[in-house]
Amino acid sequence: MAVSVFLYTFADLDKSLRMKQYNMRTFFNVEDLGDLQTALAEAQEVKKNRFAFQELGRNKTLLMIFFNNSLRTRLSTQKAAMNLGMNVIVLDVNAGAWKLETERGVIMDGDKSEHLLEAIPVMGSYCDIIGIRSFAGLTDREYDYAETIVNQFVQYSGRPVFAMETATVHPLQAFADLITIEESWKTSLGGEPKAAPKQGRLEGSRPKVVLTWAPHCRALPQAVPNSFAQWMNAADVELVITHPEGYELDPKFVGDARVEYDQKKAFEGADFIYAKNWSCPGVTRPADYGKIISKDMSWTVDAEHMSWTNNGKFLHCLPVRRGLIVTDDVIESKNSLVIPEAANREISAEVVIKRMLEAL
Amino acid sequence: MAVSVFLYTFADLDKSLRMKQYNMRTFFNVEDLGDLQTALAEAQEVKKNRFAFQELGRNKTLLMIFFNNSLRTRLSTQKAAMNLGMNVIVLDVNAGAWKLETERGVIMDGDKSEHLLEAIPVMGSYCDIIGIRSFAGLTDREYDYAETIVNQFVQYSGRPVFAMETATVHPLQAFADLITIEESWKTSLGGEPKAAPKQGRLEGSRPKVVLTWAPHCRALPQAVPNSFAQWMNAADVELVITHPEGYELDPKFVGDARVEYDQKKAFEGADFIYAKNWSCPGVTRPADYGKIISKDMSWTVDAEHMSWTNNGKFLHCLPVRRGLIVTDDVIESKNSLVIPEAANREISAEVVIKRMLEAL
Amino acid sequence: MAVSVFLYTFADLDKSLRMKQYNMRTFFNVEDLGDLQTALAEAQEVKKNRFAFQELGRNKTLLMIFFNNSLRTRLSTQKAAMNLGMNVIVLDVNAGAWKLETERGVIMDGDKSEHLLEAIPVMGSYCDIIGIRSFAGLTDREYDYAETIVNQFVQYSGRPVFAMETATVHPLQAFADLITIEESWKTSLGGEPKAAPKQGRLEGSRPKVVLTWAPHCRALPQAVPNSFAQWMNAADVELVITHPEGYELDPKFVGDARVEYDQKKAFEGADFIYAKNWSCPGVTRPADYGKIISKDMSWTVDAEHMSWTNNGKFLHCLPVRRGLIVTDDVIESKNSLVIPEAANREISAEVVIKRMLEAL
Repeated sequence: MAVSVFLYTFADLDKSLRMKQYNMRTFFNVEDLGDLQTALAEAQEVKKNRFAFQELGRNKTLLMIFFNNSLRTRLSTQKAAMNLGMNVIVLDVNAGAWKLETERGVIMDGDKSEHLLEAIPVMGSYCDIIGIRSFAGLTDREYDYAETIVNQFVQYSGRPVFAMETATVHPLQAFADLITIEESWKTSLGGEPKAAPKQGRLEGSRPKVVLTWAPHCRALPQAVPNSFAQWMNAADVELVITHPEGYELDPKFVGDARVEYDQKKAFEGADFIYAKNWSCPGVTRPADYGKIISKDMSWTVDAEHMSWTNNGKFLHCLPVRRGLIVTDDVIESKNSLVIPEAANREISAEVVIKRMLEAL
Repeated sequence: MAVSVFLYTFADLDKSLRMKQYNMRTFFNVEDLGDLQTALAEAQEVKKNRFAFQELGRNKTLLMIFFNNSLRTRLSTQKAAMNLGMNVIVLDVNAGAWKLETERGVIMDGDKSEHLLEAIPVMGSYCDIIGIRSFAGLTDREYDYAETIVNQFVQYSGRPVFAMETATVHPLQAFADLITIEESWKTSLGGEPKAAPKQGRLEGSRPKVVLTWAPHCRALPQAVPNSFAQWMNAADVELVITHPEGYELDPKFVGDARVEYDQKKAFEGADFIYAKNWSCPGVTRPADYGKIISKDMSWTVDAEHMSWTNNGKFLHCLPVRRGLIVTDDVIESKNSLVIPEAANREISAEVVIKRMLEAL
Repeated sequence: MAVSVFLYTFADLDKSLRMKQYNMRTFFNVEDLGDLQTALAEAQEVKKNRFAFQELGRNKTLLMIFFNNSLRTRLSTQKAAMNLGMNVIVLDVNAGAWKLETERGVIMDGDKSEHLLEAIPVMGSYCDIIGIRSFAGLTDREYDYAETIVNQFVQYSGRPVFAMETATVHPLQAFADLITIEESWKTSLGGEPKAAPKQGRLEGSRPKVVLTWAPHCRALPQAVPNSFAQWMNAADVELVITHPEGYELDPKFVGDARVEYDQKKAFEGADFIYAKNWSCPGVTRPADYGKIISKDMSWTVDAEHMSWTNNGKFLHCLPVRRGLIVTDDVIESKNSLVIPEAANREISAEVVIKRMLEAL
């Protein structure tokens, strides 16, 4: 038989993927972005003129697949792709209604109407880049931390894939957080963030950044604190993580950061406070994975908490429950960066999609 | 601290809004459109070539936010924005699932997962113009008529905001109604509506326009009749409003229009019949606000009703329940304008969005 | 009264439709495509450069109306329209929530909130082309096979209408199937499918194509096998249809194809196996219309089944239930064409929409 003219068959799929494993094909972890200072400089370039790269996206299609609800990510990522001149298709998958079979040798007479080995390559065939949101189930730690769903898209779609929050990471958020911290830090040092700093360092000095757990009424995933810790560890900041005992994040995300169980000590001298709730990561208490093991309201970030800091700025990924995570006066203060932080989601998404387009 | 590079912080928000309070920043009431004859002439210009203004919308994004279902408004507004070269993001908010906290000082441990003070500025940061649909709850007159939800978007989004039907007004519909009446009236006078009439008058003479209540099986908002009355009062027509006792519209919308409880007297000599059901506005009967207080089928517009008119044209905003509001023969007659009236929704939306783009 | 300037009124609607009944105004059956070889050549032209016809779609809007769920059709059709430079509006109609009244003389005080005589022309007024998905109810054969819903769109929308799977046909799938079979057949004959064959024949020889029923756990419509049979009958292939007794397809789709109740005999020497489940078409057993009358697992296509063929290729429209319709080894084999077949959905949609644009 002559050379196939088809896009790919199952037999070709592995080879096709191997051939394309270059440049920016995935965006899940901070390493996927390469040199962070280059990326931050690129973010400022994009921010100055977010419509400057429209030829890159011409006749290219982004497929955004949501297995879970989304507001900020949906809007900011769609906006970023349109800034780049792309076509965008949004696919809302009701997680309950469309279950993908992942095993072979199964008689599919139950509630799973399609096998991922068909569904994923087919979706890949109608687009150029895939963004995917698929939250942690919070019942099976091993399954969640293996990133099963998302890895299948990487393996079988034949397309670059980026996370719009997966079971364990939310890198578009963490990148936007870093952009915001860099902008604020440079501004506080008296300079606009126009030039990329040398040697991978935030100019002038090293800010102290504190990731603090705060109470919440629902069990939330660890994706945001995981990625934030990973990105801050890669950036030139002093990272301190503080939370009640039992809330230890996975060591691969904590890295060399200092873990401090005394919230006041953690906050002392802090330049940035990043508040977030997360459920038990199951590191020290495997049986408690995904559960709420504290609702200690003394961890809510209020004006007294902020008074312990070095005139610290306040960040949160949003949405935020006021009164639980943070008080009204803190989030509405001039030191609150939550709105520009959210606005930078458009910028982080645009840099990532731009790079994926360049690598197509 | 140096000048902030952020889009805005909470502290900047008020100033930012004040700075931008010029030209067409909102579209809720007929006054927002300025001179009506200029607007009608612009509508005809847009209708002649609806793709003539695409440079205006280049790299601009319309965010359409729906707290309630929509067919006509969704399609016509999206079409209008695309005619203008804009990018469009449609956000369907399940009113039950995403409740915004509006109070300060609350511990948000209930069903409201986000505070409007974060949600609205964030949505504003991903777009250039906002269209919003948020129906009346029909249980609390004061809350509905204060336009609480929509005013929060005006106050906190930092963007121009237009109504895609709010608790009390539906100006895109009323503007389309006026365009349709003007076209029909000029045509009936023997001329095409090509030239803008002088002195703000529909040429030739003043048509008699009757807004008539008609029965319905469900309790409906007053937004459509409110806006229709407001717009007709501003236009050069003779407006008569007719309905059973208890259905009096809010005086600020009724204005100087004649209210006639005898439907036959109201219809006599009418050039245009605008039928619509609405629930009790609670003006004369506060306790009945939002309730059905009459299902009198003698108010259904049938051929006999139309025989009382001056060969009157029939209008309705759609969707319409046949047999309750109007009979088949009337809505299908050559005097029925409901289809071109709906088609003019694209034109009214395009004029409004065009003006907002010009004012950006 | 002077000539109306309105798009159309009810009185004009029939005339407007008559005037526009030329060229490609509908796409439901294989005859709508005209000469098949020309269409196949056009498919290859589109596939070589799917962005070559963007001027055609400039400022044109496709409205995709879904009364039922969709994955492949939604994505591939949207992609095809964007390839052609069109604007796309997707309308998801919850079949339960938005019921259209179809009768006249009815008092609409029930669950039907709009009459199709308003809803359809209004939707038509906001777009240039309509795609519609509306599945069979599988309870009333006469209603389903009359294609009531879709025909109303053809009659009242004033726009070209194409099927995105209706009660009885799925021509975008069948066209993609034919493209895939032609590509594979030419490739197997040693040539790339670059030149359109002469005389309406697949070059070289006539492949044997077998449409085989296979078991399923849910009652499925007959649209896919109906259209596949219709298209294969129109193409230059030898078509054999095989299924258990009682599953006879409607004669108008079966045409001159051989029906063979012995699956093994049917498969012997086959070049292409097209597997699909369908519920009872009610041809020989009217009372069983839409029911499952066999779950005979001996009909599942496995390696032994494929061994009966002439090194046959395997096709399925997807989604497919593995273990019921086909085994893992067959669908994952190098002879499986299901992924390129799905990818060709973009091509078949693009040819159809391109032709409709040319006929506007």
